[in-house]
Amino acid sequence: MTTVTLQVKGMSCQHCVNAIEGALGKLTGVSGAKVDLDSNQVTVSYDETQVRIEKVKETIEEQGYDVV
Amino acid sequence: MTTVTLQVKGMSCQHCVNAIEGALGKLTGVSGAKVDLDSNQVTVSYDETQVRIEKVKETIEEQGYDVV
Repeated sequence: MTTVTLQVKGMSCQHCVNAIEGALGKLTGVSGAKVDLDSNQVTVSYDETQVRIEKVKETIEEQGYDVV
Repeated sequence: MTTVTLQVKGMSCQHCVNAIEGALGKLTGVSGAKVDLDSNQVTVSYDETQVRIEKVKETIEEQGYDVV
């Protein structure tokens, strides 16, 4: 299991939190996703044998946010 | 038909726009609702014989925003 914290731009409210945590939560191999609005960070725990970090970043960007 | 522009606090992104416009759109008597994020304003057109402005404000507040 790997845990990575990403810096993400554009997250502004609880709807954004729900959109990102919800989308990441549906990814196979992701066991946890937590958004911190104050620090603009998304912390994701995932199984490297099941999902790649590129897919995680792509999923965040598909929701309309920029991974820095 | 009456059109009122309300000052609303806490709207930050497109999710907020969708939440407010969606909730107001479902109210009987409301024929139009438009959020302007830049000015923090919500403009609502409604039929005074079908819905009161208090109900409009209440609906916005139920979505988690403050009507000033």
